[in-house]
Amino acid sequence: MLQDVRALVFDVFGTVVDWRQGVAREAAPFLARHGAAGADPAAFADAWRRRYSPAMEEVRSGRRPFTRLDVLHRENLEQVLPEFGIDPARVPEAELAELNLAWHRLDPWPDSVAGLTRLKAGYIIAPLSNGNIALMLDMAKRAGLPWDAILGAEVAQAYKPSPEAYLRTAEVLGLRPAQIALVAAHNGDLAAARRCGLRTAFIPRPTEHGPGQTTDLRPEQDWEVVAESLEDLAGKLGL
Amino acid sequence: MLQDVRALVFDVFGTVVDWRQGVAREAAPFLARHGAAGADPAAFADAWRRRYSPAMEEVRSGRRPFTRLDVLHRENLEQVLPEFGIDPARVPEAELAELNLAWHRLDPWPDSVAGLTRLKAGYIIAPLSNGNIALMLDMAKRAGLPWDAILGAEVAQAYKPSPEAYLRTAEVLGLRPAQIALVAAHNGDLAAARRCGLRTAFIPRPTEHGPGQTTDLRPEQDWEVVAESLEDLAGKLGL
Repeated sequence: MLQDVRALVFDVFGTVVDWRQGVAREAAPFLARHGAAGADPAAFADAWRRRYSPAMEEVRSGRRPFTRLDVLHRENLEQVLPEFGIDPARVPEAELAELNLAWHRLDPWPDSVAGLTRLKAGYIIAPLSNGNIALMLDMAKRAGLPWDAILGAEVAQAYKPSPEAYLRTAEVLGLRPAQIALVAAHNGDLAAARRCGLRTAFIPRPTEHGPGQTTDLRPEQDWEVVAESLEDLAGKLGL
Repeated sequence: MLQDVRALVFDVFGTVVDWRQGVAREAAPFLARHGAAGADPAAFADAWRRRYSPAMEEVRSGRRPFTRLDVLHRENLEQVLPEFGIDPARVPEAELAELNLAWHRLDPWPDSVAGLTRLKAGYIIAPLSNGNIALMLDMAKRAGLPWDAILGAEVAQAYKPSPEAYLRTAEVLGLRPAQIALVAAHNGDLAAARRCGLRTAFIPRPTEHGPGQTTDLRPEQDWEVVAESLEDLAGKLGL
């Protein structure tokens, strides 16, 4: 099914962990403390996340040198707080730094740790995330994600879906792109990986964006594998 | 003892794994096949390793752009074979490539896996080796080294003992140098790390260079920790 594949690389935000509920959980007491108790913490998570792709686009376009995601998240946080009536200049620095670490403390989906543990027995497993190394490490230590290595944007010095993010990851692994499969809940990420020659596995995460999610509910191409969860993926790969 | 330290980073060749016996084991059948059956495989390992530091010095000095260790090892192999009466041009490419992977298949010292496993419970653990990512990953998967991440020269794009190797590793971890300790069997590596502000732990490996070893038998500075093995280090750190 994934013949010749030696490494599985994973999208993380949405595919392995639930960023929306995790950020909302961390934001709720912060919002309450700063006079936005009426705000919906999940809407705050969505608003913060909405600035994610445009911020990376500055790097992808070459307008800005590579800048790690912790820095972009912090800039985005300072931009989004006023939308919720909070002036970041009046929030103590330590509190802003702490809230920015919400992204380091996201919970895995219920099948993630068990699925990754099984997959690790047959493959090199590593994140190919836009998250930086320290973020991925903190998350993995807290959640028990058993990665073999932390790869991704910071190692490749390029953000997905730029081809360099996938191709430099293959180079670093010493593998041909066809010996690597990307596992992701996002059709766009898989399409970009496939254009670079990687194999692809789709896992739908129908509540990543909350109960009303309309995107990425189904595979949009004939991905090599479609599985219900990381445990299901392990089973389909004979592990 | 290592107050405030959150990450332990490790020298690998010599400190975690026994490169000399591992390379000798892989070289022995190769030498026999190519008419050098009388050669001492350990002497071959020493000769190959002797070209390690000069090759990296080309990069450290800026005379050559960063080049990963697998490539330097391969160049060094082709230079060392004639010393043993073997013309690399007459050896099939696949055999040279295979012998070059000897460095991916080194055995850990007897205490390494158990020691790292204990240390992982209290710290981020990662190699800070001059070995490249694919090399470290293959070694870890084969030997069961439970790294949290693969850091080192290829991530830092600098070879130890250049300061950038230590300082960029700290930057990637999002930590101050004093929050990181280097664990190494080599006084020179520890001295370079200390000059960058890292904490230091010395583990003697008195047979790294074989039975007649004369270097690095004792700590040459007041390193923060001196331990007999990685298991002993774990004990000294209360793990």
